[in-house]
Amino acid sequence: MSTAATSGMKLFTGASHPALGDEICKYLDISPGNIAIRKFSDGESYCQIKENIRGADVFFVQPTGPPANHNLMELLIMLDAAKRSSASRITAVLPYYGYARQDRKDRPRVPISAKLVADLLTKGGADRILTMDLHSPAIQGFFDIPVDHLFAAPVLVEHIEKHAIPDLVVVSPDAGGVERARAFAKRLGGVGLAIMDKRRPEPNVAETLHVVGEVKGCNALIVDDIIDTAGTVVSTAKSLLTNGVKKVYACFTHGILSGPARERLDKAPLETVWITNTIPLLDTWKDYRPLNMVSVAALLGEAISRIHCNSSVTSLFD
Amino acid sequence: MSTAATSGMKLFTGASHPALGDEICKYLDISPGNIAIRKFSDGESYCQIKENIRGADVFFVQPTGPPANHNLMELLIMLDAAKRSSASRITAVLPYYGYARQDRKDRPRVPISAKLVADLLTKGGADRILTMDLHSPAIQGFFDIPVDHLFAAPVLVEHIEKHAIPDLVVVSPDAGGVERARAFAKRLGGVGLAIMDKRRPEPNVAETLHVVGEVKGCNALIVDDIIDTAGTVVSTAKSLLTNGVKKVYACFTHGILSGPARERLDKAPLETVWITNTIPLLDTWKDYRPLNMVSVAALLGEAISRIHCNSSVTSLFD
Amino acid sequence: MSTAATSGMKLFTGASHPALGDEICKYLDISPGNIAIRKFSDGESYCQIKENIRGADVFFVQPTGPPANHNLMELLIMLDAAKRSSASRITAVLPYYGYARQDRKDRPRVPISAKLVADLLTKGGADRILTMDLHSPAIQGFFDIPVDHLFAAPVLVEHIEKHAIPDLVVVSPDAGGVERARAFAKRLGGVGLAIMDKRRPEPNVAETLHVVGEVKGCNALIVDDIIDTAGTVVSTAKSLLTNGVKKVYACFTHGILSGPARERLDKAPLETVWITNTIPLLDTWKDYRPLNMVSVAALLGEAISRIHCNSSVTSLFD
Amino acid sequence: MSTAATSGMKLFTGASHPALGDEICKYLDISPGNIAIRKFSDGESYCQIKENIRGADVFFVQPTGPPANHNLMELLIMLDAAKRSSASRITAVLPYYGYARQDRKDRPRVPISAKLVADLLTKGGADRILTMDLHSPAIQGFFDIPVDHLFAAPVLVEHIEKHAIPDLVVVSPDAGGVERARAFAKRLGGVGLAIMDKRRPEPNVAETLHVVGEVKGCNALIVDDIIDTAGTVVSTAKSLLTNGVKKVYACFTHGILSGPARERLDKAPLETVWITNTIPLLDTWKDYRPLNMVSVAALLGEAISRIHCNSSVTSLFD
Amino acid sequence: MSTAATSGMKLFTGASHPALGDEICKYLDISPGNIAIRKFSDGESYCQIKENIRGADVFFVQPTGPPANHNLMELLIMLDAAKRSSASRITAVLPYYGYARQDRKDRPRVPISAKLVADLLTKGGADRILTMDLHSPAIQGFFDIPVDHLFAAPVLVEHIEKHAIPDLVVVSPDAGGVERARAFAKRLGGVGLAIMDKRRPEPNVAETLHVVGEVKGCNALIVDDIIDTAGTVVSTAKSLLTNGVKKVYACFTHGILSGPARERLDKAPLETVWITNTIPLLDTWKDYRPLNMVSVAALLGEAISRIHCNSSVTSLFD
Amino acid sequence: MSTAATSGMKLFTGASHPALGDEICKYLDISPGNIAIRKFSDGESYCQIKENIRGADVFFVQPTGPPANHNLMELLIMLDAAKRSSASRITAVLPYYGYARQDRKDRPRVPISAKLVADLLTKGGADRILTMDLHSPAIQGFFDIPVDHLFAAPVLVEHIEKHAIPDLVVVSPDAGGVERARAFAKRLGGVGLAIMDKRRPEPNVAETLHVVGEVKGCNALIVDDIIDTAGTVVSTAKSLLTNGVKKVYACFTHGILSGPARERLDKAPLETVWITNTIPLLDTWKDYRPLNMVSVAALLGEAISRIHCNSSVTSLFD
Repeated sequence: MSTAATSGMKLFTGASHPALGDEICKYLDISPGNIAIRKFSDGESYCQIKENIRGADVFFVQPTGPPANHNLMELLIMLDAAKRSSASRITAVLPYYGYARQDRKDRPRVPISAKLVADLLTKGGADRILTMDLHSPAIQGFFDIPVDHLFAAPVLVEHIEKHAIPDLVVVSPDAGGVERARAFAKRLGGVGLAIMDKRRPEPNVAETLHVVGEVKGCNALIVDDIIDTAGTVVSTAKSLLTNGVKKVYACFTHGILSGPARERLDKAPLETVWITNTIPLLDTWKDYRPLNMVSVAALLGEAISRIHCNSSVTSLFD
Repeated sequence: MSTAATSGMKLFTGASHPALGDEICKYLDISPGNIAIRKFSDGESYCQIKENIRGADVFFVQPTGPPANHNLMELLIMLDAAKRSSASRITAVLPYYGYARQDRKDRPRVPISAKLVADLLTKGGADRILTMDLHSPAIQGFFDIPVDHLFAAPVLVEHIEKHAIPDLVVVSPDAGGVERARAFAKRLGGVGLAIMDKRRPEPNVAETLHVVGEVKGCNALIVDDIIDTAGTVVSTAKSLLTNGVKKVYACFTHGILSGPARERLDKAPLETVWITNTIPLLDTWKDYRPLNMVSVAALLGEAISRIHCNSSVTSLFD
Repeated sequence: MSTAATSGMKLFTGASHPALGDEICKYLDISPGNIAIRKFSDGESYCQIKENIRGADVFFVQPTGPPANHNLMELLIMLDAAKRSSASRITAVLPYYGYARQDRKDRPRVPISAKLVADLLTKGGADRILTMDLHSPAIQGFFDIPVDHLFAAPVLVEHIEKHAIPDLVVVSPDAGGVERARAFAKRLGGVGLAIMDKRRPEPNVAETLHVVGEVKGCNALIVDDIIDTAGTVVSTAKSLLTNGVKKVYACFTHGILSGPARERLDKAPLETVWITNTIPLLDTWKDYRPLNMVSVAALLGEAISRIHCNSSVTSLFD
Repeated sequence: MSTAATSGMKLFTGASHPALGDEICKYLDISPGNIAIRKFSDGESYCQIKENIRGADVFFVQPTGPPANHNLMELLIMLDAAKRSSASRITAVLPYYGYARQDRKDRPRVPISAKLVADLLTKGGADRILTMDLHSPAIQGFFDIPVDHLFAAPVLVEHIEKHAIPDLVVVSPDAGGVERARAFAKRLGGVGLAIMDKRRPEPNVAETLHVVGEVKGCNALIVDDIIDTAGTVVSTAKSLLTNGVKKVYACFTHGILSGPARERLDKAPLETVWITNTIPLLDTWKDYRPLNMVSVAALLGEAISRIHCNSSVTSLFD
Repeated sequence: MSTAATSGMKLFTGASHPALGDEICKYLDISPGNIAIRKFSDGESYCQIKENIRGADVFFVQPTGPPANHNLMELLIMLDAAKRSSASRITAVLPYYGYARQDRKDRPRVPISAKLVADLLTKGGADRILTMDLHSPAIQGFFDIPVDHLFAAPVLVEHIEKHAIPDLVVVSPDAGGVERARAFAKRLGGVGLAIMDKRRPEPNVAETLHVVGEVKGCNALIVDDIIDTAGTVVSTAKSLLTNGVKKVYACFTHGILSGPARERLDKAPLETVWITNTIPLLDTWKDYRPLNMVSVAALLGEAISRIHCNSSVTSLFD
Repeated sequence: MSTAATSGMKLFTGASHPALGDEICKYLDISPGNIAIRKFSDGESYCQIKENIRGADVFFVQPTGPPANHNLMELLIMLDAAKRSSASRITAVLPYYGYARQDRKDRPRVPISAKLVADLLTKGGADRILTMDLHSPAIQGFFDIPVDHLFAAPVLVEHIEKHAIPDLVVVSPDAGGVERARAFAKRLGGVGLAIMDKRRPEPNVAETLHVVGEVKGCNALIVDDIIDTAGTVVSTAKSLLTNGVKKVYACFTHGILSGPARERLDKAPLETVWITNTIPLLDTWKDYRPLNMVSVAALLGEAISRIHCNSSVTSLFD
């Protein structure tokens, strides 16, 4: 990266994922901005930006994965500090956008938390957002400020293709993910597509998973944006094997992997699980053999550089 | 409380302090509103209001003590849900207002988090705020919506006076708390006042605490709004005893009691510590003998009732 | 409807669909509000509310179907007039919410017009929104004001069930509509579900429509929210017949029916087409035999009455 | 125009008047920005900006003449697209500002649509406005963003003076236009001024037009900002001839020319009618002999260039 | 006034015109609200509302005549106090709206102060505005909150008609006031109308005043909204007498009467000068014989009562 | 100051303190911006910026001391003019921030005028604020725009140290000023500190001033931010002398000196009174011998230059 491409830019990393921030800085060939972040014993967050940022183009890298509320408030506090310190432009970089799954009122008197988060980020001081693989693309419309939305698919596909899995079929674990799965299948060279359909045949009868589409004798790649407690992927994998699939692979952009995820995955018949590093992985996952970590740092770094230089971000995906 | 006084009112309690909410409801002779609150395994908050609140005058009781960020986000999410459910008016009741101590830029490039919180509450959907003993009274000015600000002093004084402590002097543990301590001394019948003054006589010499005012032979009551890690109160108590004080008492509105608080207090020469229940006390404190819990539920309940009925809240303190 | 239920309410109908407004008024047993609406020869809209609305709970019924821009601006102008006339509350009733299909950035540098419309309605003066079968449920999150979202399904299903179609399977014409179709199938007593999947096997080869799911020997009901130029429904119907379907039915909430719709439908093998009256039907459609118009006036009227009386709207769908 | 003067500038033309946009681009010696604009068969507008505009100083040229609502919404949608595409500054160029005549509440419960339009433009994403000969100069105060307000008078006067009309008197067709007419008379070298005064002598008696001021034996130039249905200008012209005027000329900035305009003008005793090209003229007007089209493209182009370069726009009129 | 008509209403009078406030209260048969207003020796304003206003419909009567800036700030401070005291609705009553004459950019780089004032009132806490005879009616559009705009004409005309002046002609002192003068002439039974036209025949020649319209042998009534330094009315009166007028009368809504007004009027040939009491008159004017003070207190009181009761204000002028 | 450091900057001085503006310009080596400011005889303010400021970094220097309301409105009007004239950034420079003492609700139903002023400045058009020695540091949190807060202490201390006063003790005249006094004592080389404590021993007994801390035999320097009517400083000085102080000095940042200030100070036993020039001094003070005026023009000029060049302002105080 030429110096010109990053002149006047400052990149700060919150406490939620310093390793990713460092990797992005390495890609950009800059030093991370000097910021002191503290968590008091009552749980309040605090920060002090330790260098002059007047007139600077400031980026804060902070995925808002678990603990979601803490990471979000820490980000808001950093935005507030930057806003009051005369930054010329502030970009909140959320490789993972927490609360994205609460994007609609699917029952009476619930919040639309993904919109609330959008409002909080704007009120906190963000002038623009950089994020990746939003659970619902309509979340872009929750903002009045510009949102740059990256896709991890090209990076993931590049890694998956190295495995040269024969007879591949891409499987969407539910109806909501079909468009994502279809785009993936296309990038993988036009392989087949199947959809899991959960049905409860009669009241008081257990739900059953039907596979819609041809999977018999294939190797299946389950594709989804988020893996959280891993319940869906495990039941999908089992159902696919029952339906004659040979081997089951899975790939996700955001590895939340909370609660019973490890316990479930340890018992699950998965060959390989690709996950990107939008969310930091706990050390305890180091010995989970099928896991294959794919870095999106270069993609984020390149997008940050283009945003800073007013180059097209869209053309990253042509 | 007459039924008329609470007709059309709905009071919901967040997960941060259900006991206080219940006690307020008892005072008001109403049932707590039906709300389901959930914390997902990735730390995201969720709620569903389980009864119709259209046109209702809705109150959410949620102190934002530890874990501060989680309790604040949970409150914001409840506000968002209520706003979208056509409540006629929404009051956020924060018996303890977290982040109140970050109320100014005391060094370069820090946030003013108390203002950020005010903005978030307003953006989230609060039409008005009810709070108690704000660390800084200027925080009222951080809001453009009405703020009702209660004082715990009358309730605390009522309990302290029952002890009939002779030769009492009220002590402010630092300069910032003098006005609070003075008001307390006045309410206690015009007893004496002293101030702790922390000084570092020369560089690289330890700070020493001077007592400003006459305390020798008196019984001292340390008065402050917040007790958090208990460092200040313990060193103040020791210094007072060194300066000839007979017995040391202490009272606080907000008992955060985080981090090393218990360890420090266990070793501290305090006769009695009065704290209100604005923040829930962990069970582990049950065996801390000097602790004397004073309930502000009736005060909050009465204020809520008056807000609902458009009666004067100020006159509560005449 | 008792007089009490509508006391203090004023309902005005814009020029886009006076018949629907009249029908709603009949349900509510009130007279439509007196408003003069004019379109000048240069295309500008104008209105004058001809009765006092101070302190009133005002509703404007205006679907923003074709001509979309004209109907939307007319609605905004009515909102502005009401806002300046001291209405106590203004509800914009959009039985059909135009621009709902532009709800995301699906390619670079396009507008999110559904969000723009939400912003315009709010800026224009709407305090709340009543709408039906939004193309994307996330549009609710585009608003910070309360949105009541009705579903036409119960009304449509009631009519369809009268036909007692045997061997019914519900068909979603694309992946995006699967959740809608599934809910419909459930309401129809748990009938089968199938999905159309459009594929282009190789570059420069025509797209083909696959039917996912079992349809052979069944009667198919194509379910979608909008029928506009009718291209999709016609190709779906043909493909279903090719795949062994006996008869094809279709139902839609919003009948835009613009451009080549009539020409296409005239040639389409459809037994019955159910459409609600959220959008006015041109007279030229009177002789289109398969058409079966279902009124949602009572549903809208009941919702308006409940909003006015602060009763639960959700319970309409229990 | 030097390249430096337009570097970093992008000018896009909406569908309402592409010829004017092209002419402005020619003056600026730049290519029009690449934008795809579409009108769907249901009347909804759509656009896609087909080139990178990050950090650019973007101008959208779109007079909002007939069809007023469509042209306005199309402009708003282009603004929304640009705002979300990280333009550095967005200027909405409305050579003709539609709805300007609805600038006050002249009767109860009417909208102030000119203010509504100002709010919509700002909400849509405009950072500044460039417009010409606003019907009411107070409309500038409807905006909180900067408004550059151009005057067509210098350009029109230059053309009129070429005709060297002897014994000229400038006539304002109504009291509201006197200040405009007076300024015109001054620019024409201090010629005379007269005012039309419409009176109804008694109830149920037809209104009559009085000429206030000396016109007998003169050649009259009727001056107004807008010619729409041409009723006023035609009756003014007739009345002037009755009062001894020799020949009647007329000039207008904005030629809306809607409804019965052509029919009326065909019968009107007008020697020459000067109109600028702020609004596109229908082809049917080509054979209207008295019409004399005056281009304001250079004026708009020069203003755009000065806005871009931070030069004074006011000095254009010194 | 029945008690019901004012129940729940509180009317406070600022320091700018207590007499008018008292007179309005008498009309409404209520006591003025209890408020302490103070001006510190450094010129800062201060107020304390001395009674509970929770849930009340609050009105502040404060014309912003001289000293304009002080009266405006005092009003803003009262609004702020009321907003923070939980008033249910706040109406700023400005019988005279100061800064109304700065309503447009008539030269480069000047403020639009009338818009600024509108923004300040709204930001300060006004929910609605009640005002009278705005210098420019477009100022209503500077607000997004409801504005009730009263006309003094009916009250003034009632008084003038008692004088039964024969051969009356209404004169507008400039072109901008013609519409106002015409409406006045109509209310006076259709009397004649004339306009003053100020012209400078050649550079470096003094301006001369022409009378447009027939005035010879008539009695003239000069009509304007504001009399400030009285320069225009005096020169108009002289010019009218020169042109054969018998006697000159004048009437104004707002009597600012600042600077050289008294000196000029003392020398002016005016029979009677009607002024309303929207602005308080200095005691020094008591001996100015032609002055005839007309009270608008009943008109304001009636409007306040109707606003409070949601009755039509417009119908006051039918 | 190099030309580069001020290129693209325009500094305008309001009418409240032109001498300070000129001094700042001299420091910056620039000419003051050309602006015409007028006060009409009715007290309304008016301005016209007489040079092009498009794209410029504009500063307005205007302390809002007495007459507070007039100076504030004049500033708001200048901001409005600049905002509408396409300045690229507008900084309101308030060396003295009027209304700062009304920063909290210390009794029921009072305004928080310091917050109101913050809102007015932002609404008027300020993009950022530069101010000095705010009465309450929490006022920074009343703004959402960046605030640069300067301290006069270094400049004052530099002057005071020249006097080499022996046995110095710094005295805070009340509890609220202790932190300010302490910081001052530290800058003066760690001299002693004392606090005045006002007490009323019994009802109906006069208040008495106690000195807390050792002052006997010392020379005392009273330190406060504001001297207004001089009551506190005079009674403090007398009390100090009574308590054995040898000589009394005083220093203040903001010399309002209104009302009885001169009369009181003439009788007060003060050796020297240091005041900065944040507020203009009336000529009548020229013969007040103890007065020692200290200029903060260089400090303000340096801060303006650093803001313009995006250098750190904080480092001014290292």
